[in-house]
Amino acid sequence: MAYQSELNTSQRILMGPGPSDVHPRVLKAMATPLIGHLDPEFVEIMDDIKAMAQLTFQTKNHLTFVVSAPGSAGMETCLVNLLEPGDEALICIHGVFGGRMADIAERCGAKVTRVEAPWGEPIDPKQIKAALEQCQPKVLAIVHAETSTGVLQPLEEISRIAHDAGALFLVDAVTSYCGTELKVDEWGIDAIYSGTQKCLSAPPGLSPVSFSERAVEALEKRKTKVQSWFLDLSLVRSYWAGAKRAYHHTAPVSAMFALREAYRLVLEEGLEKRFARHRRNHELLKRELEALGFEFLVQAGYRLPMLNAVKLPEGVDDAIVRRRLLDEYNIEVGSGLGQFAGKIWRIGLMGESSTQNHVHVLVSALKDIF
Amino acid sequence: MAYQSELNTSQRILMGPGPSDVHPRVLKAMATPLIGHLDPEFVEIMDDIKAMAQLTFQTKNHLTFVVSAPGSAGMETCLVNLLEPGDEALICIHGVFGGRMADIAERCGAKVTRVEAPWGEPIDPKQIKAALEQCQPKVLAIVHAETSTGVLQPLEEISRIAHDAGALFLVDAVTSYCGTELKVDEWGIDAIYSGTQKCLSAPPGLSPVSFSERAVEALEKRKTKVQSWFLDLSLVRSYWAGAKRAYHHTAPVSAMFALREAYRLVLEEGLEKRFARHRRNHELLKRELEALGFEFLVQAGYRLPMLNAVKLPEGVDDAIVRRRLLDEYNIEVGSGLGQFAGKIWRIGLMGESSTQNHVHVLVSALKDIF
Repeated sequence: MAYQSELNTSQRILMGPGPSDVHPRVLKAMATPLIGHLDPEFVEIMDDIKAMAQLTFQTKNHLTFVVSAPGSAGMETCLVNLLEPGDEALICIHGVFGGRMADIAERCGAKVTRVEAPWGEPIDPKQIKAALEQCQPKVLAIVHAETSTGVLQPLEEISRIAHDAGALFLVDAVTSYCGTELKVDEWGIDAIYSGTQKCLSAPPGLSPVSFSERAVEALEKRKTKVQSWFLDLSLVRSYWAGAKRAYHHTAPVSAMFALREAYRLVLEEGLEKRFARHRRNHELLKRELEALGFEFLVQAGYRLPMLNAVKLPEGVDDAIVRRRLLDEYNIEVGSGLGQFAGKIWRIGLMGESSTQNHVHVLVSALKDIF
Repeated sequence: MAYQSELNTSQRILMGPGPSDVHPRVLKAMATPLIGHLDPEFVEIMDDIKAMAQLTFQTKNHLTFVVSAPGSAGMETCLVNLLEPGDEALICIHGVFGGRMADIAERCGAKVTRVEAPWGEPIDPKQIKAALEQCQPKVLAIVHAETSTGVLQPLEEISRIAHDAGALFLVDAVTSYCGTELKVDEWGIDAIYSGTQKCLSAPPGLSPVSFSERAVEALEKRKTKVQSWFLDLSLVRSYWAGAKRAYHHTAPVSAMFALREAYRLVLEEGLEKRFARHRRNHELLKRELEALGFEFLVQAGYRLPMLNAVKLPEGVDDAIVRRRLLDEYNIEVGSGLGQFAGKIWRIGLMGESSTQNHVHVLVSALKDIF
């Protein structure tokens, strides 16, 4: 049987929508022998991670921590804690992940108003204003970086609109976090979640989240129990932030070792430099891909630097070329999701995968194949 | 700031209720550079893990896989998928984890009947029979190895009672799995969840689960959506078992590398030998601890071999001695939970932590301290 042989993976170059390449320091930290999840040394590690999550989210929010499960569970954490049956939510949808938020909000028993833009375009604040004439949402949710389309959604004006309407402003920052500007406090974001396997370049499996004081007040005013025990912040909080750390679940110790080191790398580089690096390599990739006949799906000004959604040149077969990239060059790029399946690629330049060399090997391989 | 320095943990000897010590081969596998979560090589790894989960659960259940979050999320996966609002559930409670199941079942909108035994004692099948005269549960749930009390709960008779009553039989095997006999098919278990950080000796963060054909039929007959999107098996299934693996969430790639290697170690040793090793080291610990004045909380015949719940000898201060064990000897043992806080210890001999040497260093340290 296959499992009888030692793990023997190919050495991939990860240029899909995540996971991204992981720095050897992160892998080394992850391989540290374990300590207990209530060990005083582990509590210090949690404090370190919380402090670095606050710095990278650019927030002073006390309720900033890491959900012990992937980004989708971070999304669910935000929605199930902020919404109760009967609450209204306004969800902006311009790709897969906005749709997922609406699905989860409905599973919370919320009445959902959808504001939709064509996939590949940002949401226009005017659409939201118009929708707000028909509803009074407790939560207004939007995706900052739509991983399915490559759109970077401007947030500041929408944040003001949300607050003027008395709504909490919830943001999906799975792909943007640590790769492009994101200012939780300055932009008035009330709840935010991300993942670790994108521009943070840690292994997948954890979801950093942060809640403003206004969001915490909403949690405290709940009339019903949160429908998920595992994600119930009234319980999780006392593990992450209680004076005495109360056992809730067993934290993924090794993944937290890795996350701590990934955060250290981000802060050593500095956020501004990191964002500039992501922009620079995006520009390089853009020039090279356009010369090869690729077209960007998203109009200039709204393109994600870390996730490049491009239409394939005439005559290029999606599945065959992606398979050749993987088999012959060990390069992974992402396929299209949903309505874009077979039509676009999603090329990630995230975290450790955002380098000139990544661009060069991909472009050279494509020139070979074409 | 503390996070500016490199990760620098003490080399602990893990003898609490998990995580247990992890084999260097598992740490090494975990540090393998990442591949994508939809890479054909990763799909093979998922298949390997599924096959090894089936072997270790002793089941042919097709719906056997690993939840991308810790054991508590495995518990929630079983309950939110099998229960709908208005369903009845009979939950056996003889410690913290039975209580947690009841809490989650109520969050699913189920009508819960509790069958309780004093903490430290097993549930008597007669109690269940009596309770079944007053209710018609869809699910009858019980903890096989109560991590909070050290009780090993016999399951076979209760399984028959559950099936005679037309209920699905749901078992928490977080602590027993891979450390003592557990036969999912032979014992008629319909849904089961475990964790990776106990007798399997992988890092915490994943939860192996398995569902029988009867349980799958119940899933397919649901009238309402599962309240959790992240844990909804109608979605997760197509990622783990679909003909074409459909993206659901990003699997924790590194943790899966580690789990694959931990399973390989279990199967190389063989289940029977592994169970015998756990019993043997439990017997050794028992003799040594009783000589030091400790008393077992649980009557003989119902004691977990991998988690020894013992009352402290007269005059021994729980917190002080545990702290000295940790600070001076690098040994972690577990404190009491709930009503046993301050009164008992929970000494784990799980997986890689079930060795003579573990017993010897702990006993020698205690002799030093006493």
